[in-house]
Amino acid sequence: MQPEIKAFIGCDTPFEEADAVIFGAPFDSTTSFRPGTRFGPGAIRNESFGIETYSPYQDKCLCDLRVFDAGDLELRFGSPESALADIEETAAHILDARKKPVLLGGEHLVTLGAFRAAAKRFPDVCLIQFDAHTDLRDDYLGEPLSHACVVRRCHDIIGDKRIFQFGIRSGEGYEFAFAREHNYIWPTTVKGVDFAGVKEAVRLIGDRPVYLTIDLDVLDPGIFCGTGTPEAGGCTFNQLLEAIMELSSLNIVAADMNELSPHYDQSGASTAIACKLLRELLLSVCRTS
Amino acid sequence: MQPEIKAFIGCDTPFEEADAVIFGAPFDSTTSFRPGTRFGPGAIRNESFGIETYSPYQDKCLCDLRVFDAGDLELRFGSPESALADIEETAAHILDARKKPVLLGGEHLVTLGAFRAAAKRFPDVCLIQFDAHTDLRDDYLGEPLSHACVVRRCHDIIGDKRIFQFGIRSGEGYEFAFAREHNYIWPTTVKGVDFAGVKEAVRLIGDRPVYLTIDLDVLDPGIFCGTGTPEAGGCTFNQLLEAIMELSSLNIVAADMNELSPHYDQSGASTAIACKLLRELLLSVCRTS
Amino acid sequence: MQPEIKAFIGCDTPFEEADAVIFGAPFDSTTSFRPGTRFGPGAIRNESFGIETYSPYQDKCLCDLRVFDAGDLELRFGSPESALADIEETAAHILDARKKPVLLGGEHLVTLGAFRAAAKRFPDVCLIQFDAHTDLRDDYLGEPLSHACVVRRCHDIIGDKRIFQFGIRSGEGYEFAFAREHNYIWPTTVKGVDFAGVKEAVRLIGDRPVYLTIDLDVLDPGIFCGTGTPEAGGCTFNQLLEAIMELSSLNIVAADMNELSPHYDQSGASTAIACKLLRELLLSVCRTS
Amino acid sequence: MQPEIKAFIGCDTPFEEADAVIFGAPFDSTTSFRPGTRFGPGAIRNESFGIETYSPYQDKCLCDLRVFDAGDLELRFGSPESALADIEETAAHILDARKKPVLLGGEHLVTLGAFRAAAKRFPDVCLIQFDAHTDLRDDYLGEPLSHACVVRRCHDIIGDKRIFQFGIRSGEGYEFAFAREHNYIWPTTVKGVDFAGVKEAVRLIGDRPVYLTIDLDVLDPGIFCGTGTPEAGGCTFNQLLEAIMELSSLNIVAADMNELSPHYDQSGASTAIACKLLRELLLSVCRTS
Amino acid sequence: MQPEIKAFIGCDTPFEEADAVIFGAPFDSTTSFRPGTRFGPGAIRNESFGIETYSPYQDKCLCDLRVFDAGDLELRFGSPESALADIEETAAHILDARKKPVLLGGEHLVTLGAFRAAAKRFPDVCLIQFDAHTDLRDDYLGEPLSHACVVRRCHDIIGDKRIFQFGIRSGEGYEFAFAREHNYIWPTTVKGVDFAGVKEAVRLIGDRPVYLTIDLDVLDPGIFCGTGTPEAGGCTFNQLLEAIMELSSLNIVAADMNELSPHYDQSGASTAIACKLLRELLLSVCRTS
Amino acid sequence: MQPEIKAFIGCDTPFEEADAVIFGAPFDSTTSFRPGTRFGPGAIRNESFGIETYSPYQDKCLCDLRVFDAGDLELRFGSPESALADIEETAAHILDARKKPVLLGGEHLVTLGAFRAAAKRFPDVCLIQFDAHTDLRDDYLGEPLSHACVVRRCHDIIGDKRIFQFGIRSGEGYEFAFAREHNYIWPTTVKGVDFAGVKEAVRLIGDRPVYLTIDLDVLDPGIFCGTGTPEAGGCTFNQLLEAIMELSSLNIVAADMNELSPHYDQSGASTAIACKLLRELLLSVCRTS
Repeated sequence: MQPEIKAFIGCDTPFEEADAVIFGAPFDSTTSFRPGTRFGPGAIRNESFGIETYSPYQDKCLCDLRVFDAGDLELRFGSPESALADIEETAAHILDARKKPVLLGGEHLVTLGAFRAAAKRFPDVCLIQFDAHTDLRDDYLGEPLSHACVVRRCHDIIGDKRIFQFGIRSGEGYEFAFAREHNYIWPTTVKGVDFAGVKEAVRLIGDRPVYLTIDLDVLDPGIFCGTGTPEAGGCTFNQLLEAIMELSSLNIVAADMNELSPHYDQSGASTAIACKLLRELLLSVCRTS
Repeated sequence: MQPEIKAFIGCDTPFEEADAVIFGAPFDSTTSFRPGTRFGPGAIRNESFGIETYSPYQDKCLCDLRVFDAGDLELRFGSPESALADIEETAAHILDARKKPVLLGGEHLVTLGAFRAAAKRFPDVCLIQFDAHTDLRDDYLGEPLSHACVVRRCHDIIGDKRIFQFGIRSGEGYEFAFAREHNYIWPTTVKGVDFAGVKEAVRLIGDRPVYLTIDLDVLDPGIFCGTGTPEAGGCTFNQLLEAIMELSSLNIVAADMNELSPHYDQSGASTAIACKLLRELLLSVCRTS
Repeated sequence: MQPEIKAFIGCDTPFEEADAVIFGAPFDSTTSFRPGTRFGPGAIRNESFGIETYSPYQDKCLCDLRVFDAGDLELRFGSPESALADIEETAAHILDARKKPVLLGGEHLVTLGAFRAAAKRFPDVCLIQFDAHTDLRDDYLGEPLSHACVVRRCHDIIGDKRIFQFGIRSGEGYEFAFAREHNYIWPTTVKGVDFAGVKEAVRLIGDRPVYLTIDLDVLDPGIFCGTGTPEAGGCTFNQLLEAIMELSSLNIVAADMNELSPHYDQSGASTAIACKLLRELLLSVCRTS
Repeated sequence: MQPEIKAFIGCDTPFEEADAVIFGAPFDSTTSFRPGTRFGPGAIRNESFGIETYSPYQDKCLCDLRVFDAGDLELRFGSPESALADIEETAAHILDARKKPVLLGGEHLVTLGAFRAAAKRFPDVCLIQFDAHTDLRDDYLGEPLSHACVVRRCHDIIGDKRIFQFGIRSGEGYEFAFAREHNYIWPTTVKGVDFAGVKEAVRLIGDRPVYLTIDLDVLDPGIFCGTGTPEAGGCTFNQLLEAIMELSSLNIVAADMNELSPHYDQSGASTAIACKLLRELLLSVCRTS
Repeated sequence: MQPEIKAFIGCDTPFEEADAVIFGAPFDSTTSFRPGTRFGPGAIRNESFGIETYSPYQDKCLCDLRVFDAGDLELRFGSPESALADIEETAAHILDARKKPVLLGGEHLVTLGAFRAAAKRFPDVCLIQFDAHTDLRDDYLGEPLSHACVVRRCHDIIGDKRIFQFGIRSGEGYEFAFAREHNYIWPTTVKGVDFAGVKEAVRLIGDRPVYLTIDLDVLDPGIFCGTGTPEAGGCTFNQLLEAIMELSSLNIVAADMNELSPHYDQSGASTAIACKLLRELLLSVCRTS
Repeated sequence: MQPEIKAFIGCDTPFEEADAVIFGAPFDSTTSFRPGTRFGPGAIRNESFGIETYSPYQDKCLCDLRVFDAGDLELRFGSPESALADIEETAAHILDARKKPVLLGGEHLVTLGAFRAAAKRFPDVCLIQFDAHTDLRDDYLGEPLSHACVVRRCHDIIGDKRIFQFGIRSGEGYEFAFAREHNYIWPTTVKGVDFAGVKEAVRLIGDRPVYLTIDLDVLDPGIFCGTGTPEAGGCTFNQLLEAIMELSSLNIVAADMNELSPHYDQSGASTAIACKLLRELLLSVCRTS
């Protein structure tokens, strides 16, 4: 008798043979409003058996990919810098083995750990962000390592015109000004999200390596209420899925999906959506064997 | 003093005088993921007093119909075959009395009981299905009588080109292939559901008798999270309502609505939507007196 | 050390210097279906620190307005008439000071108190209503002071062609007839809400004073399930926001937002949406300093 | 086919042949803190099929009693006086037919309606109260008809030394003083409830007629959290059950059980306890046939 | 990088070296009232990292035991007989390897599978049951394989005076009579549970092999509301723990713990208690190395 | 019109005239299992209007005390050291003004901030702890500033035989050994909590100053499930209340109450208990005027 493995559905390729490696960072210590994203990666694994491995959208199956799920890191709550160091080390290990890290948060700050590793390995890396919030504060209540500052910290590393922001509909006035000056931004208006820019981003990026970060609160709280800071006026599942599928021509070297706080959606629908999006993301960015 | 009756709002015509007869099948024993649809019919009755009997969409009122609500069957949990037999017997009794059965699930498997009765009484019956899932598996973990196989079991009875599937966005690859070959299917894509086919189905069916089955998970989980297997990318309430109204010219001889699992939506909105849809369904398929 | 103030984010201008005054009426005694709107105003204040003061939609900031939040009235449960008297008195006091009252319900009946004050101060006042329900019953189970009758009571005061109704999709047949005859109504159909009429209403009203009442159940329950009587087929957040912004050219002398029942949405998303709408409403109807 | 009856388990004797008659008063308009007891009677009926009709505690079965369940009254929300009048009328009708009314609240105020009827029919009636709260205020925020005043209103009718209060552990100082002077009270201390007084009350009352009112918040919130005003330090289920059984020698002419607010206990345990207590109460106060 | 293992805390000894083997049977198809125990074993594993491996009650540590956790069986929903066959086969496999099976339900019916295996291997096995319900029905709605009949089915196998029942406080009258005639029973009265009989049972059993089944609803719903059929008047955690510790001198050859339905206790306390009890159970029945 | 004050019921004495000062520390960044105690202080204030100011247990009223409620500190999430510094500064400010600080957590780590201030002001201070957990780890996953280490950090400051621990029933073996050697501990056994030691502690402490810390998880999860790490086998409300009342003869110079995580108890009962305990604590440790 063998012990039971805790893995996302269909992601049971051994590490050595895998093209992509999932790992979780159940961390939410800097969350300013409502914590709980630490439960995100575990919930996604537990509930993934409720979805199919086959995607009718892409006519592909997880059974034809080679993905390894490494489970969750054990991170020190209350110590953001040490948590980021652990995440960076794991992402670097995966990148060194010529595989794609797929990080599951946790709060959005965890992106910084994996992005540091990606930017070291691929100095010309670009960042594509789907999010409701700018995340461009210089600091938050005096703290520079906060979920509200994570994209600003990424900008510190790679500089101007390398970051592409979609779905944004919340932030301070100065953050929007910063985004317009230093990044590419397609903000959300009263007419809805503007994902027409995805095609333009694909063109602008060309064959440069890409780090893709998806803060799930880019989705409308109507379909994804399981997150700490629900922000009305977001995109639909179909809009986000289509955008992800449009990115499949890019050279995505690492990706993450974060800010699922499963306990806030007692119905389980938010977790189910995260599972489905992770399936579609994997099918988009990994080669089929 | 008389005892209080448990009935859907406005459905208090005696059986003998009724055109349509509601009955519930609170059964969920084969549910593979998250049970609870057994609580569906009771919740619909309890909460129905929160809606109006009048529909501004159709400018009709339940008070002008003749519907009897027979309450719930008492079914044996853990025994799908005996549950299906009881459902079939009740539906047959209603059909024999020249009335329309309107079955409330319960899991989708319950459809098979009523459909067997309808297919005996109307050998040329067609099946219209609104659903997120194909439900076309041959068996599920070895079990042929499962919610995941129910439409396949219906196909066993009536054969090719008699089943019309709408809203489908989940299933194994082979199920989609089966549907394309043996049924009519308008699958859901990243652009959304395709209900344009409803008009075509109406034309293809003509005046043949129709069994209408609505798995409520055809709705987007954003507006209907109270179901066991929420599947992102579904239709809106208005889309489903419009589709139902377009069916009113057909000869619908029996109908069901299933897979409401009310406890999964603590807000009660899913149950309220089911109540409203049942009202609209009754107003669409029954004659006003 | 000073005590902590309980106020909506950014609304800390002293009463004397304020242009607008928020006050809460935590009353739900006539609610016929599911109570709980009494918790609405408190929830909005508590959760308001989770949103930004800056609106990217309007490119304005609450920090540039002058709003005072007076907290909640202490109302007598079980006594609608005395509650309405207290609300009217407070609204009159604010209007007498040449400020705009912004009332937070509670159930929709509370509107009547503030509307009475506004109609005394501005005899030519018009009423714009966003709502799922007509609220035009003559009485409800014999009670004329009920949430289901509130707009009818307003009509008693100001008479014909002064009330503009948007989003309506539920009511008795005779209520719709009344609305068509005595008010302006743009009912919701299976094609969705009809907010094209907002522009027409703005034109018809001209520079007359306006009382704006927003029953939050005008929103689709998919994005706003935290209300006592969820009614499928409502508008999106963006649609409502756009409509509110289109009203900014009117002379709005008083406004209210009601029917948030926060406990029914355990995710907190409904409360977050109400906070965001209140921010946008204030930014639309108040002058920036 | 017959419609389904909504009745407490085993309570299907026709009115004419019944010894006791259950009826519900789903009213909570004066609730000052958290409403929801209006859902109590319906929940008790719905969930009663989850318990047995047989009591091993009393070795008796509901199947040997003759009880009729009349369902719920339709009461005017927001109008306490008219609600009390309807309750009184129903209780009087039952008493006139020489049967025992068993009232299910609703908030505790409903007791006043049934008690008025009992005191008219039995002028020497005594009141036994199990409750966490004194309910002896003269008025509550100026309102004399409030749940917080209900026992004081009963005292207005029957005067001194006719009321027996058990389990009390909350109230104003002057209410406790009133109770000690005008009623019999066995208050709860840090050592727990004092139900030793039940025997003494039985002795003091003798063969006078008794109205028994059970506010379920007498139970500890640890075992009964489904109530609007949970008050720590209450009695156990066994203590309350034993007290009820000790009352079986009295001439109980009417009884009520109130303040179950089922939505506040998502587990359903509070409703299950209320069902079990109602079974035991019926078995204690009714004759077996 | 290795995949993450899904196991109860501290239970990572390989199968070959283990003294005891945990396995889960997530089955609830015959549950008549409220399903959900299928989620029990997974919840216990997930939440077990919230407790310590050390027990101050027994001054022992899981780190000193040798336990293997085999994860969950994949059972056919809707087919009790095939589920029981799978459970029996697994238990037999463990027993054949001279190890103790520790089964986690699922509904109580799962006991029958493991008990069949134990009774074959140990023909003189006795059964000790902690439970709120007799579970002695001959059939339930015609179905002999139901949770309500499970102990009766065990009696079919081993016959009279081999079953010891504790905590029972619910059942039909004839079930109690059966228990008194054919088993040993210490029923619960209004004075509380009677666990004094545990010592007597230990004496009566002597060195015969014992199968221990714990239906967690033996606990009072006040401390364990996460179960399908909460039954007031149960034992405390300390009472059950003490009883389990008193059994440590017996020759327990197999054990199970069932009927945790974790979703019914949103606070997670029921799952935490089940985790703690499983720790104490393992420490009581396994040898320390 | 004045703004509304956010304060615990009856605690509206201005700072200058107050004997005791309540302040909240909504911090939970080091919580290892389930976060949410950050919502504790706010919930206690919001819900306090649901209890009376009068205590029948002590026959005293909050209206006769002089307490100021300073509201909540704004703390940096993710930075334990800076949060502790802010807490210490506030407590020192209150102590310097010759008033008693009453701190509301947040996680238990917050105690360290206030205790540092108290130990500076009163070098001979003793610590009385009510808790389920030893909290004596040297570090937790390498972090010395963790809720699991807080009492160990207090021991670092004041040394041996100055800490009195009650209710403890969880910890590593070495923590219990540490407690027995360096502190006074009355651990909880299978027979229940041992609060007989309270009297002994009172005697041992004499007139030395005392810091009282109450981790609310000392209560049994049956009556207090609204906490991150529920630990079965705790004390009752009455036991804790009696213990607090027995401490009233001591010279308590500062106190805290922590670990309420209100969202985990959807019923609100845990928050209600915390409110009641805070009332009793204030009535025990403050002088009546």
